[in-house]
Amino acid sequence: MKINYSPGILSLLPLFYVGWSDSMLGPSERNLIMEKINKMPHLSKEDRALLNSWTDQRNPPDQHIFKSWIQAIKENEKHFSTAKKSSLIELGLDMAKQSSEQKNVGFQSSAEVIQSLQELEKTLGFEESLQSSLLFETLHWQNQSDGPEHSNHLGDILDGAYADIQGKIRQLLQDPFFRNKDIRLKEAYRERVLAQVKELAKQGLGAYAFPKEYGGQNDPLLNTVIFETVALGDLSLLVKFGVQFGLFGGALYMLGTKKHHDQYLSQTARLELPGCFAMTETGHGSNVRGLETTAKYNRETGQFTIHSPHVDAGKEYIGNALHAKMAVVFAQLIIDEEQHGVHAFLVPLRDEQHQDLPGIKVEDNGYKVGLNGVDNGKIWFDQVQIPRENLLDKYGSVSEDGQYSSPIKSATKRFFTMLGALVAGRVCIALASNTASKKALNIAIRYALKRRQFSQSKESEETLIMDYPSHQHRLFPKLAKSYALHFALNDLRTMYAEKLSSGDMRKVESLAAGLKAVASWHARDTIQEAREACGGKGYLAENGLADLKADTDIFTTFEGDNNVLLQLVSKGLLTEFKEQFQDGGFMSILRHLGDRLSTSISEANPVSRRNTNAEHLLSQEFHLQALEYRENSLLYSLANRMRTFIKRRLHPNETYKLVQNHMINLAIASIESYCAKSIYKAINALDDTDQRKKLTRLARLYCLDTIYERRGWYLEQDYLSGSKSKAIRKQISYLCNKIRPDARMYVDSFNIPEVLLSAEII
Amino acid sequence: MKINYSPGILSLLPLFYVGWSDSMLGPSERNLIMEKINKMPHLSKEDRALLNSWTDQRNPPDQHIFKSWIQAIKENEKHFSTAKKSSLIELGLDMAKQSSEQKNVGFQSSAEVIQSLQELEKTLGFEESLQSSLLFETLHWQNQSDGPEHSNHLGDILDGAYADIQGKIRQLLQDPFFRNKDIRLKEAYRERVLAQVKELAKQGLGAYAFPKEYGGQNDPLLNTVIFETVALGDLSLLVKFGVQFGLFGGALYMLGTKKHHDQYLSQTARLELPGCFAMTETGHGSNVRGLETTAKYNRETGQFTIHSPHVDAGKEYIGNALHAKMAVVFAQLIIDEEQHGVHAFLVPLRDEQHQDLPGIKVEDNGYKVGLNGVDNGKIWFDQVQIPRENLLDKYGSVSEDGQYSSPIKSATKRFFTMLGALVAGRVCIALASNTASKKALNIAIRYALKRRQFSQSKESEETLIMDYPSHQHRLFPKLAKSYALHFALNDLRTMYAEKLSSGDMRKVESLAAGLKAVASWHARDTIQEAREACGGKGYLAENGLADLKADTDIFTTFEGDNNVLLQLVSKGLLTEFKEQFQDGGFMSILRHLGDRLSTSISEANPVSRRNTNAEHLLSQEFHLQALEYRENSLLYSLANRMRTFIKRRLHPNETYKLVQNHMINLAIASIESYCAKSIYKAINALDDTDQRKKLTRLARLYCLDTIYERRGWYLEQDYLSGSKSKAIRKQISYLCNKIRPDARMYVDSFNIPEVLLSAEII
Repeated sequence: MKINYSPGILSLLPLFYVGWSDSMLGPSERNLIMEKINKMPHLSKEDRALLNSWTDQRNPPDQHIFKSWIQAIKENEKHFSTAKKSSLIELGLDMAKQSSEQKNVGFQSSAEVIQSLQELEKTLGFEESLQSSLLFETLHWQNQSDGPEHSNHLGDILDGAYADIQGKIRQLLQDPFFRNKDIRLKEAYRERVLAQVKELAKQGLGAYAFPKEYGGQNDPLLNTVIFETVALGDLSLLVKFGVQFGLFGGALYMLGTKKHHDQYLSQTARLELPGCFAMTETGHGSNVRGLETTAKYNRETGQFTIHSPHVDAGKEYIGNALHAKMAVVFAQLIIDEEQHGVHAFLVPLRDEQHQDLPGIKVEDNGYKVGLNGVDNGKIWFDQVQIPRENLLDKYGSVSEDGQYSSPIKSATKRFFTMLGALVAGRVCIALASNTASKKALNIAIRYALKRRQFSQSKESEETLIMDYPSHQHRLFPKLAKSYALHFALNDLRTMYAEKLSSGDMRKVESLAAGLKAVASWHARDTIQEAREACGGKGYLAENGLADLKADTDIFTTFEGDNNVLLQLVSKGLLTEFKEQFQDGGFMSILRHLGDRLSTSISEANPVSRRNTNAEHLLSQEFHLQALEYRENSLLYSLANRMRTFIKRRLHPNETYKLVQNHMINLAIASIESYCAKSIYKAINALDDTDQRKKLTRLARLYCLDTIYERRGWYLEQDYLSGSKSKAIRKQISYLCNKIRPDARMYVDSFNIPEVLLSAEII
Repeated sequence: MKINYSPGILSLLPLFYVGWSDSMLGPSERNLIMEKINKMPHLSKEDRALLNSWTDQRNPPDQHIFKSWIQAIKENEKHFSTAKKSSLIELGLDMAKQSSEQKNVGFQSSAEVIQSLQELEKTLGFEESLQSSLLFETLHWQNQSDGPEHSNHLGDILDGAYADIQGKIRQLLQDPFFRNKDIRLKEAYRERVLAQVKELAKQGLGAYAFPKEYGGQNDPLLNTVIFETVALGDLSLLVKFGVQFGLFGGALYMLGTKKHHDQYLSQTARLELPGCFAMTETGHGSNVRGLETTAKYNRETGQFTIHSPHVDAGKEYIGNALHAKMAVVFAQLIIDEEQHGVHAFLVPLRDEQHQDLPGIKVEDNGYKVGLNGVDNGKIWFDQVQIPRENLLDKYGSVSEDGQYSSPIKSATKRFFTMLGALVAGRVCIALASNTASKKALNIAIRYALKRRQFSQSKESEETLIMDYPSHQHRLFPKLAKSYALHFALNDLRTMYAEKLSSGDMRKVESLAAGLKAVASWHARDTIQEAREACGGKGYLAENGLADLKADTDIFTTFEGDNNVLLQLVSKGLLTEFKEQFQDGGFMSILRHLGDRLSTSISEANPVSRRNTNAEHLLSQEFHLQALEYRENSLLYSLANRMRTFIKRRLHPNETYKLVQNHMINLAIASIESYCAKSIYKAINALDDTDQRKKLTRLARLYCLDTIYERRGWYLEQDYLSGSKSKAIRKQISYLCNKIRPDARMYVDSFNIPEVLLSAEII
């Protein structure tokens, strides 16, 4: 059925076509649309009546009408250049012009008409650059294929300055020597992993963070890159590698002094001295200050006695416990009954024949969810004597006659400085978590680009599961988050390396804690989703996801329990907040911030809270503002609540307990905001416009998905209107649709060698 | 500091005390409070000024003021009876009266005063029965201990009519013969599990669903109870048990006819004929209609030829593949090139010596995430000949001369009837999922009632982690959901058994699909949270959660992928919806429903959307209405969108693709609403008031947590106001606090023998 529409109608057809394309034109939108249309100067009464009939959700345009629109648009397609495809309005006006050449209607250049069309466009929420491509995509709807683009188009951006070392490790790990498949018995598995760690040590990879004189590179930054990349291989290997060089070696280096370095660091870096890091006790995990192992100084012998007072004061989950010759043991330093807090001590565990030394008892922790190539165990000390020199004494030392001294007066500050010196562990686990997420996304997305299921008819080929919107929704927001985390972790790494030399580590510690929590939960959720997205295939060990899931599961609770870490982050934010406003006093700060927030709610917001314009929704400005607003607002209300409790003289611990959930939410909000800033910073620094465009899509999806996930909060706060929240949902769908053709490119850019994915299905 | 407050102030003190107890009095609440206070007739100007100073969030009542309130309230405590503790207002008036006896102020019985106080109470959102106990709890704040109550107080309600058979199985499974700990090598593990299934068969437990003449009990209902209870043991055992009796035996019984039953059913029930269920193919999982294995009828020989046309048409993930003698094979029935759709055939796999028969090729699927005691494998058929009688011909048969006949004309209907006959599998997996959730909750909650971490001071004992609000928030809503699912699954089970005899299974199929998806995801999330809540201990195999997680992980994708199942549920709802309004035509239905919905939004809602009164928030009425509203509203908008697409003559598959996410949301909403109805139905049938009270708390928590999780949607729809959403959050906290003292009782009521939890930590 060919219908000759009037020029006025034609000018609006492209907008109507896109507006109805997902059949989501709601009743509330109808009134807004008709309001705009009734004001348009170039429409006749008949035009308005017809358009009105097309906005009725209860009686939507039927097949014939819809086809007539398509026909009219396609007819015009030949007339306009692809350059003009950039605007639905231009297209509509062009269509009107083509027809009006016969009819002499000349509103195409009227500023008033153009403005009124633009207003309608905003009401419908179409983005300038998105709209017409969407139009042509839906006009020519078809199952999208994988596309010709199989390149790692963003790979150089992701690798950045670290391409060399990453390339080297990727190459190395592909050697069959590093493959561990289906080794079910822990004993055999552990021996194999030990040999593999030795090989990495031989390559000098364990020593990067150490000074050159001990065989290292003095490069803590590259050290984190190595860890991140070794995470592409077997994670038992990674963890054992981390225990030896990061935890044992790191403690030796960061908490010890020259005498310890001279004696042990080179051996440690070469794995000639296998060591373990004995901090956690059965009874004390998160509460490190409450550790019960004691280290009493004996003035007569000049020795410390390391002792586990009861069974639950034994060290537990200690990696390398069965292979280690020596342990860094965290214990309460006691001199003459006076406690000086937790300190670290070097305690020899085994003799040359690898027999336990007197007073040492080690027990295997047995099988675990995963990481069965790591020999985790429990260790107890029964009055074990060690020389005075074995105290790692950078932050506290004991003289021969039993005098305690420390460069840091406050015991609390000393404790946190010591823990802070070990921050690299959290940075590394955050990075390794994201490596694991990238592997899982790679497997699941590549499988979805091969796997077909269900067809439209008996004749037609089945649909690629990647073409199902629900499948895109399951995987693409997680892909976007892995990208955002990638840049955030890069920023964290850089800041860590800078601050290591310059001093104040508090910001680094806080960020590392927060990013470790967020990245490890992201890995947990992403691997789980990837496993399910591969169905039965995902459940088979041969496809890699089983081990990936099992091995990374502990990342959420080791190197600090995520829930505890997030509370640390919020404590850090509260402290920073207080310091920032130190002069004015706490109350004036609150007043100031409260005023600022209420201004942004009551004044700035009414303008933007209902703004469903796509340009706005997709803008960096909106994303960063919204995420920062959440962070600031949660911080403000938390500070306010805390102050009330404090005024009431509640014990601080009691206060923290009452605001725990609030603190966890704030910490997550601050990390989410940080990730958004990082990815946009990376984008803003790019020259290549195509790379910018491709990365921007992910940044937008990350931000909008995050805001949408938190929409309950934003709506409660009246920061978003209901219609804006719905408009965000639409944009998320559009973005998934735009990302789909490049899906393979996005995962290829992670530069993960196929053999390291160890997945038969891809 | 003792302050003598005026009677007016005293009348309000309890309300102020509770209002400030969590320091969450927001600025928006202040205006509302002052508005009410300014209208109160019994307050002096000074009273009002003082109260005004107490509502300033920026300058909240300090420690001294707060203590003076406590003092005033405690002083009065001796005067009033515990009965009076039921209302904050009565307490306040009582306090005023005590003081006014000297001062002769007599407003205590003024209706106007009481009413104005009640209005303020509503504004503050305190529940009648909750408020005063909260007051006394916070007045006498202390670390709560485990409490004396260690009973399974709700156990008889949960077990209900099935206590006998459950007791028997619980007893049986405790026998050391059924323990499988750390059997790492699949071959050994599988042999052990096979022996265990044989033992269950010996006890007659595999045959309950079969007729008595074949050794059964003709009791499909008890059959599901058995499966649910066997799930307390090793899940490899459960799955192998299910494959043999539920899938193989079930298909034989439900799809076969008397000749098949006579020949095979007794042997099957005794596990003398180990069988497998060969439906899924590598290339076709969810799309069962697209299976590619063929069964061609050969008129000359009177045989079917079973054939796998290519490698991906092989059967995969088939449980019992290595032990089975025979398979039920689903294949495309072809007679003279004509396809009759998928049918089930009995295909012998192995001879007496357990050698593969000619044309049969079986391959081990290898190690999996979990369930390594089950021998999953791949099976290919190379022109395998079977006699005509081996077609399971209840729904379609082939005569000797190759005539096809079926009691069901429509091929589509026939296909779905055949699949529907196998619905018991989904019912059982849903039940087993919830058993797994209960085990995980039991372990995590009992650990949290033992584990202490961090203390207020060096002297005081560390806090039980169950007393941290964040820990309660992690576990209690999941506990509540497991209870709600328990009753929903019970209702499903009953409906299943009823409908089996009476006919129309569609509702049962739809509910089974939805509950299977929701219950298996709940298990996934609950076990994961429990694992993390136990920290490093949760990661150790010795504490049970590792296997529980690994074994149940496949529940989300087998017996139907959850995402696909939920779309089935929504298709069912759409069909039901259409049938319901068949006479009026689709458009009039929509108009009708649309009017009804918009009425409930625009008229009913403004009253309730802002109602933050606790009585309302905690009411069954609000819960059921809100959850049903979401279901109806999503159904309405889905039907509307579908109709628009259909008008446009989009292919139905294309249409479904575009509304996939909408369908998944609708299905989940309908199951959530169903669960709420089920648990309230169970509560309403209870006589025991204490049991009612205890169960009601969980029902409330389940409903409010569900609504709160979906608050983004409710706020978008303007069904909830922002302040109501916040009030719900508060109620969730209060409920967690109320549930805390009974935590042990709630998990003890699951009646899980300690040895079956197989967790060292509890």
